[in-house]
Order: sequence, then structure tokens, then C-alpha cells
Amino acid sequence: MPDYKAPLRDTRFLIDDVFDFHASYAALGASDATPDMVAAILEEGAKFCEQVLAPLNRSGDEQECQFNNGEVTTPKGFKEAFAQYVDGGWNGLAADPAYGGQGLPHSLGLLISEMVGASNTSWGMYPGLTHGAMSAIHAHGSETQKQTYLTPLTEGRWTGTMCLTEAHCGTDLGLIKTRAVPQADGSYAISGSKIFISAGDHDMSENIVHLVLAKLPDAPAGTKGISLFIVPKFLPNAEGHAGARNAVSCGSIEHKMGIKASATCVINFDSASGYLIGEANKGLNCMFTMMNHARLGTGMQGLCLGEASFQGALKYANERLQMRALSGPKAPEKAADPIIVHPDVRRMLLTMKAFNEGNRALAYFTAQLLDQAHRSDSAEQRDEAENLLAFLTPICKAFMTETGLEVTNQGMQVLGGHGYIREWGMEQLVRDCRIALIYEGTNGIQALDLLGRKVLGSQGKLLRGFSKIVHKFCEAQVEHPQLKEHVAQLAVLNKQWGELTQKIGMAALQNPDEVGAASMDYLMYSGYVTLAYFWLRMAVVAQQQLEAGAGEAAFYQAKLATCAFYFKRLLPRTAAHLAAAEAGSECMMSLPAEHFGL
Amino acid sequence: MPDYKAPLRDTRFLIDDVFDFHASYAALGASDATPDMVAAILEEGAKFCEQVLAPLNRSGDEQECQFNNGEVTTPKGFKEAFAQYVDGGWNGLAADPAYGGQGLPHSLGLLISEMVGASNTSWGMYPGLTHGAMSAIHAHGSETQKQTYLTPLTEGRWTGTMCLTEAHCGTDLGLIKTRAVPQADGSYAISGSKIFISAGDHDMSENIVHLVLAKLPDAPAGTKGISLFIVPKFLPNAEGHAGARNAVSCGSIEHKMGIKASATCVINFDSASGYLIGEANKGLNCMFTMMNHARLGTGMQGLCLGEASFQGALKYANERLQMRALSGPKAPEKAADPIIVHPDVRRMLLTMKAFNEGNRALAYFTAQLLDQAHRSDSAEQRDEAENLLAFLTPICKAFMTETGLEVTNQGMQVLGGHGYIREWGMEQLVRDCRIALIYEGTNGIQALDLLGRKVLGSQGKLLRGFSKIVHKFCEAQVEHPQLKEHVAQLAVLNKQWGELTQKIGMAALQNPDEVGAASMDYLMYSGYVTLAYFWLRMAVVAQQQLEAGAGEAAFYQAKLATCAFYFKRLLPRTAAHLAAAEAGSECMMSLPAEHFGL
Repeated sequence: MPDYKAPLRDTRFLIDDVFDFHASYAALGASDATPDMVAAILEEGAKFCEQVLAPLNRSGDEQECQFNNGEVTTPKGFKEAFAQYVDGGWNGLAADPAYGGQGLPHSLGLLISEMVGASNTSWGMYPGLTHGAMSAIHAHGSETQKQTYLTPLTEGRWTGTMCLTEAHCGTDLGLIKTRAVPQADGSYAISGSKIFISAGDHDMSENIVHLVLAKLPDAPAGTKGISLFIVPKFLPNAEGHAGARNAVSCGSIEHKMGIKASATCVINFDSASGYLIGEANKGLNCMFTMMNHARLGTGMQGLCLGEASFQGALKYANERLQMRALSGPKAPEKAADPIIVHPDVRRMLLTMKAFNEGNRALAYFTAQLLDQAHRSDSAEQRDEAENLLAFLTPICKAFMTETGLEVTNQGMQVLGGHGYIREWGMEQLVRDCRIALIYEGTNGIQALDLLGRKVLGSQGKLLRGFSKIVHKFCEAQVEHPQLKEHVAQLAVLNKQWGELTQKIGMAALQNPDEVGAASMDYLMYSGYVTLAYFWLRMAVVAQQQLEAGAGEAAFYQAKLATCAFYFKRLLPRTAAHLAAAEAGSECMMSLPAEHFGL
Repeated sequence: MPDYKAPLRDTRFLIDDVFDFHASYAALGASDATPDMVAAILEEGAKFCEQVLAPLNRSGDEQECQFNNGEVTTPKGFKEAFAQYVDGGWNGLAADPAYGGQGLPHSLGLLISEMVGASNTSWGMYPGLTHGAMSAIHAHGSETQKQTYLTPLTEGRWTGTMCLTEAHCGTDLGLIKTRAVPQADGSYAISGSKIFISAGDHDMSENIVHLVLAKLPDAPAGTKGISLFIVPKFLPNAEGHAGARNAVSCGSIEHKMGIKASATCVINFDSASGYLIGEANKGLNCMFTMMNHARLGTGMQGLCLGEASFQGALKYANERLQMRALSGPKAPEKAADPIIVHPDVRRMLLTMKAFNEGNRALAYFTAQLLDQAHRSDSAEQRDEAENLLAFLTPICKAFMTETGLEVTNQGMQVLGGHGYIREWGMEQLVRDCRIALIYEGTNGIQALDLLGRKVLGSQGKLLRGFSKIVHKFCEAQVEHPQLKEHVAQLAVLNKQWGELTQKIGMAALQNPDEVGAASMDYLMYSGYVTLAYFWLRMAVVAQQQLEAGAGEAAFYQAKLATCAFYFKRLLPRTAAHLAAAEAGSECMMSLPAEHFGL
């Protein structure tokens, strides 16, 4: 397994130099998050992830979760690591102090979750789901529900899940069959079976709080008739601890391609006691609070696994001796040159580096928006942040995972045959990454969300909100001595983005299939342009730092070199996505369904 | 596991209508391969693969090969299936009748191996390696060696391997350490350790014939000092059967991402008796006989697994009900529409279909060239076929596996969460496919072979040989009523291909790193153009058949629709590869190796 080292230098660059998190924290009144405090938290978080979580990653994959007699056992060390995590205060880092949290900014929580996911994605699922459940209860729960559930979740005594999918429906939640029958005491009897429930059962906490979508007896059909319920595995007793067992059971666990140490459960509810959270029939809205959070987290998995893969590939490329550089031996004293001398190996490494660092910038920008949306005093700023988040969330989820999969595959490829062997750890990163393109709404669904719901659904407003930022940046940098060519390239693509959107929008008025026909390529186009913007923002800062003689010149030079690589070698993919998105629906709709197999 | 059905209709279309294998067989004097005989062989081969091999695919993945007390056990049913395969005459189908084979054309062997690989890739490795060993012995062995080894290999009593890689060298075979010391009896004592030996040990045959690269004591350094040896696991006795055990042992097997039922062995030679095959120090040339064969076979794996994935995804897309078509309900009597109504699902299915059928055409064209190279009376035709094969082999290997991986990933994606669950069988296809981008020379090495050795190494002659065929085709079809737009598109790309090559060639004169910097994108560009040519050839024939009222109109219409999809949605990717290939080496070479980690 490649050793994981948290990329703190890059984190520092982004939060200090590019996005100035400190100014943002000060403006938002996050007075605890002083620069020293932030630095200390990141250092400690890195230590925990490198020393506790990373060593459990390979063994977790080999041992997998086990299911015996209705109980799930997590791999060796998982439970103890969770106890350490909770003891270290990591679980409640960004949680509300009213319920035992530390109240630090959400962005800081996201930075910690990046390191968690990069060192051990499977393990990270357990706190990840818990945080999702916490945010839904915090947003929609009654005060009593918050006291009862949020406090033990924050304290890490309990963990959470989200129970949406059923065997016959995932994307189409309007079809769910789980029923909730009102009881005399105000609770509900929940009956049904949910599948693909991450962290649905395990041995890491004393209780598990399921957030379950179900239908009331008189509910309207479809998604407008779905309600959200809290259904704990053990009913809370008077002391606030896990009491009597509820009628919730784990039916089985799935055997999966990857994230094998994350328990993916069938959870059966047999007239289990449940408690309505939020309004009746508004469950999907409540669930979206969790899902937006989860979608950003899922996008991060692409970055996390990409970073882990890059570190492994780079180490190998520096150590593995094979062939001589075509331009003449670089290590004549050795039997052959390290393979990093070969251009094609560098192509793979730079592709990885360019996506990882670009995705990281996108993620941190989004994290900063999360803080603004949660904490700003200004309704206007909150609104603007919400709009940008709405626009960027499907891009984060889909583009960061699509590119994350490419990155982990490239990382494997750098190792040649060894990349395919389990003990080297590189193929696990591909397998672990692969789910991120599927769960929390497939990437195809994200693409429809972006183009259909967000962009066209707002008559282009959400796109304009972001592309105006890009436009202003390009205007400001149009004469940049070193970067003006790239600035011009970005400006052209940004303009094209609007034109493409209009074109699809017009076509969709005639034929609604035009949206779905273009959506995935539209999303990928959007992702490449978005990353180009963040790459240029980083490059401008790197150039400033270099000129200011800020020290660590090599770091800034590497940023500029990677930016150039991104613009020359990766950004041209926009041309392919543009052409495909403009190609129209006819070439995919004309073939009758029954003729696909001919 | 998706049921596998051999796509015999498409095979028939290609060998009857597009490439006219029958005329080719007649011209080459392959009189046994009558149309009726070919049809019968394909039907029987399909039956064997569908009924015997396909049912062992999932169980083979779960059981994996086991290694105990120095012996490898293959999964349940593998040994029996091999016996059936041999009894059915499949192993010797295309082998020399002088040594027990049936002497049918190589192309027919390739068509059978397509079905084998699609139904059970792991299992197919055992006969696949055997055929590689047979071709090397046939080409380079002495008459005695052929009698001794080729006959039992053809009869399927023995199987073969190729032993190239050592722990410290894969690509760079000049570094191998395995030694061959001449013995008084004319044999050699072989000592060394080889890794990643597919079919290196197993329980399916009575003997295993290793073809081993080793160095003689006085060998020149590097690749010019490598010789090839036959090293059987059991020494042949006077009756031509497996006799005394040779000093060959299996040290361990690898635990891999996929092809888990294919034994990947460490094979140790401890002064084992070996026999020089071909000339001393010319071993690499001999090995290339096997490797070109193996590279085509590896490219086929991309097609095979892509086909299996398409069949699984299509079945699911027709059965899974989720959401309504945006253009209005298509199955109003059901709870939701089958997901094949959604444009984005069709995008995935058509991408799969377009790559599979395009890759199949490329493979069959190559198979026809194999026949010509082996059998033609005309030295000129043999020469031309060899040149085209030399050019197309790295494209087949790399492009068909890159796109095969994309196809299997898309197939998984169509199934959503179920795609990630092992029992559905779709993720196995991704894992099984992934190795094909690595072994038999990584795709990066294929790209260097194509651009450096084949194209620039021949001063462009090998490219011109193929692009002239494309050019002539475009000239002939320039006025095609339905297809002229696509013809024009192909003509432009074909011209650009030459210009790109010249540009890189000129740059490489100044800086040899330009070749490696451009090679992978050059290969992908080449692949897309090559497939565009074959798609148009298929479309022209389909249009003719439609106009001739040949029946099965829906089949030909589906071809035309898929061709249109390829040209509109996939071929534009050439723009991205062109831009990247033209971007030059500076943006990847300027960053010092030690700064990649910054």
C-alpha cells in the first residue's frame, strides 16, 4: 500500500494564498478558527489519518465486513480507530455546540474529511453518513429530536444512515413501498426493506440512527408523498442511551467491487418505531439536505482516491528502473533510468496531478461557499452562496469522480503489472473510487440535475452566476504577462459555455429529449472549464508569490508547470464534449429500443 | 451474471458481407473452410462457449485459483471444460495438420477465441497461452522440437506459457537475469525466477511447456543477448509423454484485481533442463512471434468483455423500470418506463455498441490479414499483409482495450448500484478487462511501438500503407447519397493524420522526447480514425443491403444508426487527441522529477 501523506502544503496554498480562508472566517465570525488553530487542527488531523487510518486500508479491503447471525463485524481496528476519532474530537468538529459540537466552520470539517477519505475511504463512510444524518436532524428535527439524537451522534456514541433505496427503486424514489402507519402515541410503525444502506449495521457504535423515507397511508402518489422518519436501531431510554431493541434488522450485506470494509446493508423494518422528522410528505426535501452534503462528500472521494493514487504512482515512478531516457541516460550509474524520465509516464503523472490539484481547488472553493451559506449575516451573500453551491454541487459530484476514476486508473497504469496486484494497493483505489460515479445519484443524474434543473430550470441564472465570476477574472487578467494566452483560452470557452447552453435550451423547447442527450457531455464540458478557472486562479497567485520572492519557488513553479499541462493537454477535451453536446438527440433516439440488440 | 449469446449475426455480416471471408479462403486455398463448414463451426463454438464456459465465469471469479503445497488448483469445472474443448477439436482448429491440427485458417481460430474470451476470459488464458507457445515453436523450433512439443500441445495434452518478466524487469527485457548454462548433452541448465506467468501452473493438463527467455554465459549485454528456451515442467519420455519432473516449480500465485481464475505464477527454475529454440541471442525475435499473436489476443479481450458487458447492460436497460421518458410515458401500463427510454442511458448503450462493433470489424480485418500473411502464394500480398499487421497490431492492442475498459465501465454504470455488486457480474467484466491495458506491453509501450518504431521508424511508410486504403475508400464514396458527410469527415481526419505525423516527426528530429510526449494521444487518434473507416465500410454495405431489399432491414438500419452515433458523438474526440498530440513535450518535461511531489 502506498504510504499516505496529507498534502498539507497544497492545502496551505489554497486556504492561505488563493482563497484566504482566514479573512473569510473572520468575516463570518468564526473567531475560534484562528490561523494557528486551523494549522494545528490540520497537522493533528493529518497525523491521525496517516498513522491510524491509512494502515487499516489494505487490511480492511482484504478482511471485508462480515455478516453472521444478523450482525455485521467491521475489519480489525476499525472500531478502535473510530473510538480514537471520537476521542480526538474529530466527529463533532463542525457540529453545533448546542448539541456537543465544537462549532468550527464546515469548511474545516471538509478539509479533515479529505484526509480521512484519502487514507481510508471505507472507514470514512461511517462518520460520513453520520454527518449527513446530523445535518438533516439539525435542519429539520424538533428540539426534542435534536436533544435526543443529535447529541449522541455528535458525541460519536451513535452513528447514522440514510435509507432511501429499495430493490425496485433508486433514482425513482416516487416508487418506494416502505410504509409508515401512525400510532396512538404519535410515533409511526415503519415496515419495508431498504437496500444499499451504507453503515447500515456495524459494531462501531452503541446505536444506529436510520433516517428512512416512507409513505403515510394517505400519501399522494410519487415523490410528493414521501415522508422522512427517524428509526433508531435501539430506542433511546430515559437516560438518553440505547435502550430496547427496535424492530430493525440487517438482512444481509452486499459483496462489492470495492469499499469492502464499508458495510452495505439490506435493512428490514418490521413495524419498527419511527418518528416523523420535518413535515409529512416533505421527506424528499429533508433528505436533500443530507444529499447535497453527501454529494459534495462523494465528489471528494474522487479527489481523495486520486491523491492516494498519485502518491503511490509517483513513488514507484521514481524508484522503478526501466529503459533509458530517449534523450540520453539520466542515471548512468544505475542499470536503467527511473521511469519518471519517460514522457509518457510524465503524461500520466501530470494528468493525475492536474486533476487532483484542480479538483482540490474546486472543493475548497465550494467549502468556503458552505461556510457562507451557513454563517453569513447577509441574506444576499447567503443567497449567492446557495446559488453557487446549487450550480457547483453536481459538477463536484460527477466531474470529480469521473476524473478521480481516470486518475486512479492512470496511477495503476504507472505501476504496470504491479498495479494489477492487490498487495500493491493501487487497484484497490480504482475499485474504491468506482462506486463514487454511481451512488448519491449516478453521474448521469447529476448531469440532468445540472443542465435540466439547475441551469435551464433557472433560465440560465445559475450558470450566469458562475460564468460572470469567470468573465470578471478573465477581464482582470487579460494582459497578464505570463498567462494571457490561457486567460484568452478560458474566456473563449466561457463564452462558448453560454452559447452551448442557449442552443440546447432552444432545442429542448421543441424536444425535451435534447436535455438528456446533451447532459453528460455538458457536465463534462462544464467541469473542464470550471477547473480551468481554478487553475488560472492558482497560477496567478503562484506567479505573484514567485515575483514577491516568497520562498519555496519550486512549489510555485510546479503549480505553473501543472497549469500549463492542464491547458495544453487536458482542456482541449472540451472540444470533444462540445461537439457531442451539440450533436442533438436524433442519433441516439432514432434506434428503436428493441433493435439495440441487433 | 449476464447470459452470454455469441453475436453470430454480426459475425455473419462481417465475414459474409463486409470482408467476404469466403472469397478470401478460396483464394488462399483454404478449401476445407467452406461457407457451410464455417457456419457449422461458429454455431458449435457458440454453443460450447454459451453452455460450458459462460456458466463457469462468475464461480471462477469467486473461487479464484488456489495455491497449496506448490500446486495450483483451478476453479471447479475448469479442468473438465478444457477436456471438452480439446475433445471438440477446438484446440487444434487452426494448427498445422503435420502435428495433429486441423489446418483451418487462423482467422477462424480468432473468431472462436472471441467467443471464448467473451464467455470466460480467465479460462481463455490457458488455451490462449498455449496457442502462443505453439506459434513460436512452429516458427522457430527444429523438426524434433516440433514433433516432441507441438504435437502434444496441439492435442491439448500439454499446455504452454511464455516466461519473460522478472521482478525487476518487464518492459526492459535487456535486464533479465535468468541464466542458461550449456550442458554436455546439448541441453542447458536454466536458473532464475520469472513472475507474472499466466497459466504458469495449473491442474488442467498433464504437462506445461514453458518458453523462457534467458541469457547464455557469454551473451552480449541488453536485448541482443537474450535466448529462448523450451523448459517443460515434466521432461518428455521416450513415448512422448510427460516423464521425470524437471526442476521447475511454482513459487506462489498473485492475488489480482481480476482474471482471478487465471493462474498468475512465480515460476522458479533451479538448474532446470532447457532446450534452445531458434538461434542463440535471437530469443527476443522468436518471442515476438508469440507476442504479436498475444497482442492481437489481448486487444480482443477489450472487445470480448465489452460485448459481454453490452449484453448485460442492454438486458437490464430493457427490464429496469425507473422514471418516465421526458417526452411522455412509453410504458404507461407499468409503474415506470424501462430505462432504455432515457437519452443518457441510450448514450451509454450506443457508446458500447459503437465501440464493440467497430472493434469487431477491426479485429476481423486483422484476422483476414493474418490468413494472408500465413497462406498467400504471393510474396507481395504477404508483405503487404505483414506491413498492415505491423501497423494495426499496436492499435488493436491498445485502442481496443482502452475502449473496452470504457465500455465495461459504461455497462456497469447502466446498472447503477447493482453494477457495483459482484453477483450481478458487471463489475467483474471491468476488473477482468483492466489487465488488458497492462500486459503484453502496456498501452504506453504500444503507443511508442506505433509512433516510434512502426510509423516514424518506417519513414511513414506503414502509415501510408493504411491511410492510402482509407483515402481510396473515401474517393470512391465521396458522392455517397446518404453517407457523404461522414465520408468527408473521414477524409479530413485521414489527411490530418499524415500532417500530424509529419509534424511530430520533424519535432522529433530536434528532440527525441517529442515521440513519447505525443505517442499515446497519437495512438488514440489513430484508433478513432481507423474505427471510423471500418464504420463507414460497414455502413456502405448496410445501405447496399437495405436498398437491395436483403431482408432483416432492422439489422442494417441499426448499423446505420450506430454509425451515425459514432461519427457524431465519439469521433469528435479526435480533436482532443490531436490538440494534445500537437502540444509538444515541453509542458511535460520542464518539471524536474523531484518537484512532482510538491
